[in-house]
Amino acid sequence: MTAQEKATGWLSEFDATLQRGDTAGAAKLFIQDCYWRDLLSFTWNLKTAEGQDQIRNMLDSTLANVKPINWKVDGEVTEADGIIEAWFTFETAIARGKGLLRLKEGKAWTLLTTMVELKGHEEAKGETRPKGVEHGPHKGRKTWLENREEEARTLGYTKQPHVVIIGGGQAGIILGARLRKLGVPAIIIEKNARAGDSWRNRYKSLCLHDPVWYDHLPYMPFPEDWPVFAPKDKVGDWLEMYTKVMELNYWNSTTCKKAQYNEARGEWEVTVEREGREVTLKPKELVVALGVSGYPNVPKVEGADSFLGDQFHSSKFPGAENYRGKKAVVLGSNNSAHDICAALWEEGVDTTMIQRSSTHIAPSASLMELALGGLYSEQAVRNGIDCHKADLIFASVPYKIMHTFHIPVYEEMKKRDADLYSRLEKAGFLLDFGADGSGLFMKYLRRGSGYYIDVGASELVANGSVHLKSGVNIAKIKPKSVVLTDGTELEADIIVYATGYGSMNRWLGDLISPDVANKLGKVWGLGSDTPKDPGPWEGELRNMWKPTQVPHLWIQGGNLHQNRHYSQFMALQLKARYEGIPTPVYEPAQVHHLS
Amino acid sequence: MTAQEKATGWLSEFDATLQRGDTAGAAKLFIQDCYWRDLLSFTWNLKTAEGQDQIRNMLDSTLANVKPINWKVDGEVTEADGIIEAWFTFETAIARGKGLLRLKEGKAWTLLTTMVELKGHEEAKGETRPKGVEHGPHKGRKTWLENREEEARTLGYTKQPHVVIIGGGQAGIILGARLRKLGVPAIIIEKNARAGDSWRNRYKSLCLHDPVWYDHLPYMPFPEDWPVFAPKDKVGDWLEMYTKVMELNYWNSTTCKKAQYNEARGEWEVTVEREGREVTLKPKELVVALGVSGYPNVPKVEGADSFLGDQFHSSKFPGAENYRGKKAVVLGSNNSAHDICAALWEEGVDTTMIQRSSTHIAPSASLMELALGGLYSEQAVRNGIDCHKADLIFASVPYKIMHTFHIPVYEEMKKRDADLYSRLEKAGFLLDFGADGSGLFMKYLRRGSGYYIDVGASELVANGSVHLKSGVNIAKIKPKSVVLTDGTELEADIIVYATGYGSMNRWLGDLISPDVANKLGKVWGLGSDTPKDPGPWEGELRNMWKPTQVPHLWIQGGNLHQNRHYSQFMALQLKARYEGIPTPVYEPAQVHHLS
Repeated sequence: MTAQEKATGWLSEFDATLQRGDTAGAAKLFIQDCYWRDLLSFTWNLKTAEGQDQIRNMLDSTLANVKPINWKVDGEVTEADGIIEAWFTFETAIARGKGLLRLKEGKAWTLLTTMVELKGHEEAKGETRPKGVEHGPHKGRKTWLENREEEARTLGYTKQPHVVIIGGGQAGIILGARLRKLGVPAIIIEKNARAGDSWRNRYKSLCLHDPVWYDHLPYMPFPEDWPVFAPKDKVGDWLEMYTKVMELNYWNSTTCKKAQYNEARGEWEVTVEREGREVTLKPKELVVALGVSGYPNVPKVEGADSFLGDQFHSSKFPGAENYRGKKAVVLGSNNSAHDICAALWEEGVDTTMIQRSSTHIAPSASLMELALGGLYSEQAVRNGIDCHKADLIFASVPYKIMHTFHIPVYEEMKKRDADLYSRLEKAGFLLDFGADGSGLFMKYLRRGSGYYIDVGASELVANGSVHLKSGVNIAKIKPKSVVLTDGTELEADIIVYATGYGSMNRWLGDLISPDVANKLGKVWGLGSDTPKDPGPWEGELRNMWKPTQVPHLWIQGGNLHQNRHYSQFMALQLKARYEGIPTPVYEPAQVHHLS
Repeated sequence: MTAQEKATGWLSEFDATLQRGDTAGAAKLFIQDCYWRDLLSFTWNLKTAEGQDQIRNMLDSTLANVKPINWKVDGEVTEADGIIEAWFTFETAIARGKGLLRLKEGKAWTLLTTMVELKGHEEAKGETRPKGVEHGPHKGRKTWLENREEEARTLGYTKQPHVVIIGGGQAGIILGARLRKLGVPAIIIEKNARAGDSWRNRYKSLCLHDPVWYDHLPYMPFPEDWPVFAPKDKVGDWLEMYTKVMELNYWNSTTCKKAQYNEARGEWEVTVEREGREVTLKPKELVVALGVSGYPNVPKVEGADSFLGDQFHSSKFPGAENYRGKKAVVLGSNNSAHDICAALWEEGVDTTMIQRSSTHIAPSASLMELALGGLYSEQAVRNGIDCHKADLIFASVPYKIMHTFHIPVYEEMKKRDADLYSRLEKAGFLLDFGADGSGLFMKYLRRGSGYYIDVGASELVANGSVHLKSGVNIAKIKPKSVVLTDGTELEADIIVYATGYGSMNRWLGDLISPDVANKLGKVWGLGSDTPKDPGPWEGELRNMWKPTQVPHLWIQGGNLHQNRHYSQFMALQLKARYEGIPTPVYEPAQVHHLS
């Protein structure tokens, strides 16, 4: 039997067992150590069923409603290292789906099912794109511009949006675009003056650390000459243009003051200040799209008030030009800390990095080649893997075993970059590769911190151009210096706190209430029982892109890849609720941690 | 022999004859009635050699320099109705090329050769895209934003652009983007406040008459949900966004006062007014990108000054809302006249169209299906014909025989839309299908006027909702009425002159000098010896996208399709001159008409 035949055979057997409601039989088509990751199509949730029992339970709860049919292999089936990989399409009672199946010895090892579109609510594109103008005579016809202007005038005032998105950075903009395509009325609230400012306002040397192939927005890919690592201002301009072209209702220079859910009316009351006036928006659904973190973390250090120089959180660091010939202390050793140290050094500032705990360093070239190359690279594009296909492949790897895919990458990186690592260690730098050696992306998923994608600053640390003090913290600040916990005193004209961000909870506590924030619980992380990601195991990222314990409150965020991919599912969840389509959520995640 | 083998065989025989310099032999590989259209690769000109003698002459003059090699069939070869069609690639001493060959009975019927890129000066994209940030430490590094700001500050002041483009509508913007990708410093001069205003400022009901598949800009296709017929303001916003994303040096709110060529210095002196200050730009090359017409044509009519109502050229028509319940007279019967009559009728204005001479009406749906469908449609995209491929296919049809491809389309249209045509004639409308029945696109190429793409107004004319007076002109204007040449007097509160535009020559005469304008001669048209396109036969559009009789003066323009396609060749011509690559022009076109 060819791989194609095996995949087709498995799918039709699976189909048959599902058709006759044989959930036990369906589960037995999987190997022992198996995973079925479903993105909405069965569960109206993001859910990974791990093992046959969980798969059976999931089917027992969902199958009767979902009524899946038409499982069909879609495209070429491949086989490598004993694993058969097959793309397929399927339908449910209400939606069309796409998935990826991996077979091992004739049984399913991993299964991914994703919802693509709701029947009768497809995005208008290609053949079904809008005509733009209604041909023929129409008295009282409104032009596109008049309609846009009317929407801008009325939405949020005399008409209420179905969704309010707080935060008009990449997360809010991307989700906003998806909702617009699906015809769900939405307003995006952004405190900055222009779309893209959340990138523009960062330190001036910032470029994306992820390469272009990983960063495309939905609907409008970057042009072919887009830089591999786009400079922040160019990204800002792109987001601004995208917001306009996608016709988003984007309320810039608007601050969100308060939000509360009115149970009786079944709607949120979101108070914002726009153009000096208070406006109360009354959406059915509220999306928080502020990244996955809360306020900047600025440690309270004794004597900080007495400091005569400048001190900033990294998010407010204005650039190094004003500090030429001066002395800087940067607290922290992750991405921002390294970028800022390099920017300071490049402007001739005498710079010391304070490393409090070990950090994972992933040289950009190695990361691109070893970790991302297969899915997100020019090579991948040539192999027919565009970012949408790559996202699905990425999504098909269950979180539970994802680290096993990553460990070999970082084993290889250790060899390739042995010289850099050894020189960093000689310079006193505390290195790690994650609790289990699974490196950068797992650290990102588990805790959202603890690493630097090396684009050059590690060399400065290794060769002493940027001074390093490691295993210490700042104990005290004096008017013209910083005293470390080991007693060292460093002269300083500027202190930068590259100390990350707090949890979402405090932010939500202030916006809504501490009770609601606590009901929602911790955002981000997998429950991997590694540092900063306490167990129990969650199976999916906490509270991201899926129903939370607070009805009608949603979190959108992540890097560009995640926002691109998961916004599809956020938008479908919101669209279904907008259209009144039942969305029974299978096993909403429980809250185990507050922050 | 398969079609593939025949095409491969022909190409290798062609290659062999060229290799041994046998120009007579090469010409004999063509049938008697043959055409070789070359876009730069052999001629540094846009040139159609018609017949074996012209082909041999062309080769005699160019072959030794061009040194073509590596002729290779590229992709599938097709055969239909006895014609074999084959895509191919080739190289010259300095460039890479792509072409399309049509064989008839084993010999070449039509051959298209086009220059794709200059060796060593390829656009940076895909694998060779810019990195965006130089990794590693670099003292004094400049950011993308700093570089952009510096360029904005210096180009045109302390540094001179190689090219100045007068006109920042679609033509200037598209060419500007091509030049940017090729690294040719250029400034675009635009009198309006914002990119896209040349669309925004038109009458409010205007939508593109060409469908989306025909209208893509290079590098950034419209998204899949872009309307078939985009409303003007949406197009304006897209152009503005595109200008920004493409990083063009776009001088908005800037007026061009004067231009003259300084022979001694070998550069233009272009005086513009920007932000209230006069600036003199000194480019080596000057591109006029103002469409292909000059000033609006407003006929001088006796008594016009005494008119108490409003009168506008169609380009200034503000929209119909202010004229509800009033009476309008629209002079003209082409696209703008029809659109404006429909807009007036839709607002309840009592409207009369004055048709001076016969007009070609092409119903939009029929035009889309019969004329454009094969190349520019969703169907074409599904068949693997994107707009770039479509443009080449389009370009491969020699102008000399193009009408023979079009006549059957309009024969079919006459049948399909017989009812509309007959009702229009009953209403008194003077119909034509072009001098030889070849319809809209040939009229466009020959004279740029004389037609309406019917998106609904013809129905209003046919059923009398819009009143029609045909075969007459306005003889006299009185304070509250218009008197026609047949003596009819029409009450009027508003007169719209939808009377088109004058020739480029007067405009160029004012900007540079009448002598230079006359040296350049007529712009547009083929010399088809049909109305408004006097002979002799030119073989290519006069003065468009190619060297003119005025060295260093170029014309860019046309519809979106033409701008997209021919900007490639304009940009390559300018790039070669910027890099000092020799560009011997084969047979520059002679001037036979001034305007």
